[in-house]
Amino acid sequence: MMSPLRLTRGARAPTDEVSALDEHGNTRTVAIAQEHPLTLFLDKREIVTLMTLASAPEELALGYLRNQQLLRSPDEVSAVQVDWSTGAAAITSRSLAERGVPLWAADEPGTDDRAARLGRRTVTTGCGQGTMYGDLIDSLQAPTVPVAARLSAATLYAMLDNVRRHESVYKVAGAVHGCALCENSPDHPGRILRFVEDVGRHNAVDTIAGWMWLNGIGGEDKLFYTTGRLTSEMVIKCAQIGVPFLVSRSGLTRMGYDIARRLGLTMIGRCQGRHYLVFTGAQRFDAPVTGDVPA
Amino acid sequence: MMSPLRLTRGARAPTDEVSALDEHGNTRTVAIAQEHPLTLFLDKREIVTLMTLASAPEELALGYLRNQQLLRSPDEVSAVQVDWSTGAAAITSRSLAERGVPLWAADEPGTDDRAARLGRRTVTTGCGQGTMYGDLIDSLQAPTVPVAARLSAATLYAMLDNVRRHESVYKVAGAVHGCALCENSPDHPGRILRFVEDVGRHNAVDTIAGWMWLNGIGGEDKLFYTTGRLTSEMVIKCAQIGVPFLVSRSGLTRMGYDIARRLGLTMIGRCQGRHYLVFTGAQRFDAPVTGDVPA
Repeated sequence: MMSPLRLTRGARAPTDEVSALDEHGNTRTVAIAQEHPLTLFLDKREIVTLMTLASAPEELALGYLRNQQLLRSPDEVSAVQVDWSTGAAAITSRSLAERGVPLWAADEPGTDDRAARLGRRTVTTGCGQGTMYGDLIDSLQAPTVPVAARLSAATLYAMLDNVRRHESVYKVAGAVHGCALCENSPDHPGRILRFVEDVGRHNAVDTIAGWMWLNGIGGEDKLFYTTGRLTSEMVIKCAQIGVPFLVSRSGLTRMGYDIARRLGLTMIGRCQGRHYLVFTGAQRFDAPVTGDVPA
Repeated sequence: MMSPLRLTRGARAPTDEVSALDEHGNTRTVAIAQEHPLTLFLDKREIVTLMTLASAPEELALGYLRNQQLLRSPDEVSAVQVDWSTGAAAITSRSLAERGVPLWAADEPGTDDRAARLGRRTVTTGCGQGTMYGDLIDSLQAPTVPVAARLSAATLYAMLDNVRRHESVYKVAGAVHGCALCENSPDHPGRILRFVEDVGRHNAVDTIAGWMWLNGIGGEDKLFYTTGRLTSEMVIKCAQIGVPFLVSRSGLTRMGYDIARRLGLTMIGRCQGRHYLVFTGAQRFDAPVTGDVPA
């Protein structure tokens, strides 16, 4: 039996208070969101520095490595340890912990693109997404979502209501994006399973990806909600966690649209009040009969 | 006399149209924002791939290199050439064009941190901002803004009105952030000099930074407006273009706040309707007398 994954609990307080002068010339105390640099190390190799709200830094670290395809399974991981005195998240693989071999050196020659990926990424510095992008697109060619999945307008509205009522850092301090993983089941249609906010919208989806791994939760029977825009990278990350339905309060880009369509995802944007627009994958959306829309 | 900087004109159409299903079950034609990968090469060395709306890719490329301190002056640049058949922006230095020496090899030994910067950045892959961050903070220790600069509430309101009335991709397609560089002068208080939208909020400020270099425009007597949040990196970029006043429709983070305060910037957030909050640098803001605020 595998030893359990060792995790710190490095969550930090999401907000702080400062003084500000309002339009009436009065000084007020105002809550603002925190932002912390967190540098990820995989088997002692520096990977990236993320600026994060740090509500769940261990899940963020794990989910980031998952979505960058630097980890293939949570079983590869022995420990995720966040140390705020150094601003570091150290991810230790079972390979290193049990055999003394760093993960990227442990792969079979020829079968691995992880070492190559780490190598290539040093070419595209500054944001690195360019190099990653091509790789990820290739690996996402196969449909990742079950054809049978369906979403009803009633479940969509239930989810949007749940998100709207959810307590959030945004309501208190603004300056964050939120993501939610929700049920798409007859028992609890639209129920929120995990709600994550972060100063980076990619961090929020990465954190949910890490939480899903830690809890053995798949995406097939879920909905994914984000307050952020559905750009190419956002759609890719959602596809990687295997959720067939992406919902956003905001709009989308042409590239996000093209990727969602190719992968067979159902993407719904501009959800405001009772309005929404189904951009892709409408064949698995049960639209209301005309006249059936709540006022 | 120096030969003029050679520039392509690689701007692309900002929006495209797709079909979408609305909440009434009707199919509608909807405008969505474009998103293009653009890979920057400085003297043939790959630097980064940016996802951009591409409204002004040459200015973006130049401003990105300026804000990453990989260029010190527009005079260092001989050409900025965008080629969409390869998705590349090639920045050629005068050093390479006139002497055959790439820019990072042209610096005097010991005086240069540019080669070191390019070297170090290969450590922090994936987003690279971590490594950059420390460097930039160090270089920004000295106050960059003139102490004499002042902003009145009337000019702030005039600018906000101008921004609100401005034609924008956001109004048509959403999914973009906007930035504006505006005058803070008695002649044209709050007049918009340059308005840039992009799918990445950092791209928008980088584009303005590039435009300022191309047109020899300084930031001392300007206001900077953004629809995006004032996170640490956003504040650093604004400070680098030398604008004393940062204004946002959105909120800010603790780290953005701390940096703005240390650099002596005046930062105004949560501008909505007639409301605003002056978070830092209130000593150079001429607040209205109580009772003087427009309804």
